[in-house]
Amino acid sequence: MIGKFQLCSVKERIIKEAFKLFWRYGIKSVTMDDIAKDLGISKRTIYQHFPDKEAIVILVIEQELETQKCQMDKMDEDKLNPVAQMILGADYMRVSLAHMNPVVFHDLKKYHPHAWDLFHRYKHDYIIKEIRENLIEGVETELYRKDINVDMLSILRIEQVLMALDPEIYPADKFNMMNVQMEFVHHFLHGILTEKGFKYYTKYIEESATSITHEK
Amino acid sequence: MIGKFQLCSVKERIIKEAFKLFWRYGIKSVTMDDIAKDLGISKRTIYQHFPDKEAIVILVIEQELETQKCQMDKMDEDKLNPVAQMILGADYMRVSLAHMNPVVFHDLKKYHPHAWDLFHRYKHDYIIKEIRENLIEGVETELYRKDINVDMLSILRIEQVLMALDPEIYPADKFNMMNVQMEFVHHFLHGILTEKGFKYYTKYIEESATSITHEK
Repeated sequence: MIGKFQLCSVKERIIKEAFKLFWRYGIKSVTMDDIAKDLGISKRTIYQHFPDKEAIVILVIEQELETQKCQMDKMDEDKLNPVAQMILGADYMRVSLAHMNPVVFHDLKKYHPHAWDLFHRYKHDYIIKEIRENLIEGVETELYRKDINVDMLSILRIEQVLMALDPEIYPADKFNMMNVQMEFVHHFLHGILTEKGFKYYTKYIEESATSITHEK
Repeated sequence: MIGKFQLCSVKERIIKEAFKLFWRYGIKSVTMDDIAKDLGISKRTIYQHFPDKEAIVILVIEQELETQKCQMDKMDEDKLNPVAQMILGADYMRVSLAHMNPVVFHDLKKYHPHAWDLFHRYKHDYIIKEIRENLIEGVETELYRKDINVDMLSILRIEQVLMALDPEIYPADKFNMMNVQMEFVHHFLHGILTEKGFKYYTKYIEESATSITHEK
């Protein structure tokens, strides 16, 4: 049994280290050797737990999505109003993306279609549902315009998040990805707020750290 | 000389017919035989003017982009205010897309990368420039918020147009593409308008046929 716990623990350490390296350097440029070296273990030990790098990538992405899900569920429990939820959601994203090399998305899409697919399924099954609920609640509480099309705009919102991450659309040498994300969330909100909603908005952005900076 | 004019004219008729068939059925499903049959000419005659279907596709796209450019230049000459220009631009797009099968974009992207590339270059060299100028003028005339990031939002606007055309994002069985386009332009404008701009906006949407219908 002790052996089993140790194995578990090694597996977790591998995932944790891979996550750290992937987020810092992207996925393609990190090899099994790099992960082994950083952990001070042999490559053979890694292969005892994972058949290949793909298996590590998938587990890293699964865990990251699980963490994001937890964070969003926590926000739901806090029963914030829809405007605050949208701003805090963007704020959370800003923090979580701050430590991620944007090449991770590029590498996932290009070299790890299965893991990319996990991300896409999560987007469809979970995030769009969250955004949809936010929009519906906002309309019901008269914070958002009643003539918005909830289905169209919830897809638009999630696609905007992905768009800001795409270096082919917003090249990294010209745009700061997080500033693009922040510009989008504020533009998106302006696009749906009623006068009543706008008052809440002004209050929350003063309280929130989500300030738009127009650097770069 | 008469012979040359006749050749020219046949070439034009081929392009015109190909445009009509592509727009109606998409590019992939239209063969050289279809074009020849519809024109009542032999396939050999077509091959006298075009080495392959690819050459026809490219000329069709070039001519369509040229037409769009003319239309946009005409709008520029009319010296409309930025809000009216944005609404009329969307209106023009709505009319021009009304007769196009959305599969055209899918086929271009998948089977005719060179023609797709033309479209992308046009997007970058021409449309983004137009949108950028619109946004700058809107900010200068205090119709748009002065804190918008012109570079980020002009890219967002053009990407929204493409997004609405993408059946993987907005499946045709669930969404009417033109309604998505209209929802986007109105949301985009709401996102940037000042109070002053909003007054113009209300006036122009009453005048314009660009009404948002939330069918489907």
